[in-house]
Amino acid sequence: MAAARTVLLTGSNRGIGLELVKQLLGSPRPPAWIFATCRDPEGPRAQELRDLASKHPNLVLVKLDVENPSAITDAAKVVEGKLNGMGLNLLINNAGIYTPTASLETVDAEDMVRAYKTNAVGPMLMGQAFLPLLKKAAQDSKEKGLSCSKAAIINISTVLGSIKKTPDSFFHPVVSYRCSKAALNMLTVCQALTYKEAGILCVALHPGWVKTDMGTQEADLTVDTGVRSLLSVLPILSEKHSGTLLNWEGKAIPW
Amino acid sequence: MAAARTVLLTGSNRGIGLELVKQLLGSPRPPAWIFATCRDPEGPRAQELRDLASKHPNLVLVKLDVENPSAITDAAKVVEGKLNGMGLNLLINNAGIYTPTASLETVDAEDMVRAYKTNAVGPMLMGQAFLPLLKKAAQDSKEKGLSCSKAAIINISTVLGSIKKTPDSFFHPVVSYRCSKAALNMLTVCQALTYKEAGILCVALHPGWVKTDMGTQEADLTVDTGVRSLLSVLPILSEKHSGTLLNWEGKAIPW
Ligand SMILES: NC(=O)c1ccc[n+]([C@@H]2O[C@H](COP(=O)([O-])OP(=O)(O)OC[C@H]3O[C@@H](n4cnc5c(N)ncnc54)[C@H](OP(=O)(O)O)[C@@H]3O)[C@@H](O)[C@H]2O)c1
Ligand SMILES: NC(=O)c1ccc[n+]([C@@H]2O[C@H](COP(=O)([O-])OP(=O)(O)OC[C@H]3O[C@@H](n4cnc5c(N)ncnc54)[C@H](OP(=O)(O)O)[C@@H]3O)[C@@H](O)[C@H]2O)c1
Repeated sequence: MAAARTVLLTGSNRGIGLELVKQLLGSPRPPAWIFATCRDPEGPRAQELRDLASKHPNLVLVKLDVENPSAITDAAKVVEGKLNGMGLNLLINNAGIYTPTASLETVDAEDMVRAYKTNAVGPMLMGQAFLPLLKKAAQDSKEKGLSCSKAAIINISTVLGSIKKTPDSFFHPVVSYRCSKAALNMLTVCQALTYKEAGILCVALHPGWVKTDMGTQEADLTVDTGVRSLLSVLPILSEKHSGTLLNWEGKAIPW
Repeated sequence: MAAARTVLLTGSNRGIGLELVKQLLGSPRPPAWIFATCRDPEGPRAQELRDLASKHPNLVLVKLDVENPSAITDAAKVVEGKLNGMGLNLLINNAGIYTPTASLETVDAEDMVRAYKTNAVGPMLMGQAFLPLLKKAAQDSKEKGLSCSKAAIINISTVLGSIKKTPDSFFHPVVSYRCSKAALNMLTVCQALTYKEAGILCVALHPGWVKTDMGTQEADLTVDTGVRSLLSVLPILSEKHSGTLLNWEGKAIPW
């Protein structure tokens, strides 16, 4: 149950992404490199991330907007340079957006497309751009089977993207978010099937309802607890989980 | 088991859409009005539809590009005028696009977004724009419960949008299509839950693999057989089917 040596996250300047960075840095065997990407690493929204980077030489801030295909390939080049021949073990597609008021009465085409670009197309492009580095990690690993310490894509999804469970939570319609995350779940299965040969695990994870800007302060879990649970699921993931949606306790959620 | 009196379809100039128009016109009790919408009703691609309209006064051609939000609201005004106080019983969201070569190796952001706009956002906007006419039909109906003869939205989806069934058919990756149709399936459930109160049935239907430009000539079913089956499913649909994905024989497909 080794830990990933090299990790990259999107949307790591606040919320679940920032807490993932903090807990990875504080873990007993911290990664050799953590690539914390965000839209504006120089701006005020990345202050906490910069403070962390000044204390942790293994933390590298990289500019990356998941809505922008060329920014993604640019970031992949930067990361490849920094890795200097090493592969990338773990890609966490965490960046996401959410329109809390988007019922069928109010949602429009623009909101639908915006959510799709960030929540589904972004993770697709990230997988493509970082595939050579993930493949490299898989090839260099001596581990059998699939695992997060070898090579993995973790897509942060949500139970709100479960079509089957939608009737249970529809008091919160969030149509643009639900449709984009159902598509992300489909993408996860496509990635799992496509990248299996290359030795890459692909899993969608639901973090639970977490107190962040998105989750609001009414959420069930503190960001500390939510992220601790998420991270505790990663080491148990193996080939049998690839192409599934699991919650923060590792339990399967139906599509 | 009454038939819908007023029907509107998208993408009705060729393939499944055109055959739906033909079989509806030829049915024992044809609708009072069939609104056959397509992108270019005056152009060469709508010749067959114009020939039919010249013989069938109940067939009305309406210009409608499902990618264009204002074209959709314009079309709804035209249809409302023509209906002259009547409601719309049946909206069939049939228009769809497909990139046969879109594996994860080749698909790009543009293709993902294009498929999403046509296959998922279009049906969402269609439901919004035609809601007042669908509501009117439901209110004017004496039928109890939900049915296609009262008021219904039928989204033409596909088994390729089933996340659960993806491993069975992934020899054909079509990632942009799959993600957009998984989102359409989620949308169908959101529509079913939102529009139930208004008396509107919402179902996603998989027509089977049908010989059209999209399905190619290698498909299982002739367009005649495929559409005959689809149309035979409509009269059996009731509230218990709302928010489900069914195949051309009325059998449920998992999400
Ligand atoms: N919180 C919950 O209860 C909950 C539940 C289920 C799933 N999730 C999922 O968990 C993930 C993280 O959510 P969160 O609660 O931490 O949300 P959050 O507090 O709103 O943070 C969202 C993060 O995503 C970033 N982001 C948004 N669009 C981006 C883009 N185009 N490019 C790069 N980064 C972008 C934001 O950066 P900026 O600062 O630049 O905006 C921010 O860092 C999301 O995928 C969300 O759907 C959350
Ligand atoms: N054939 C199959 O095996 C199969 C299987 C499962 C599901 N389906 C679904 O069945 C539906 C019909 O498919 P088909 O086989 O008839 O496909 P097709 O032969 O390719 O015809 C597609 C139709 O959609 C129209 N369309 C495309 N984009 C549009 C837009 N933006 N606005 C308005 N109309 C648009 C096309 O109009 P133009 O002529 O203007 O391009 C055409 O009329 C689709 O939703 C498809 O996903 C088909």
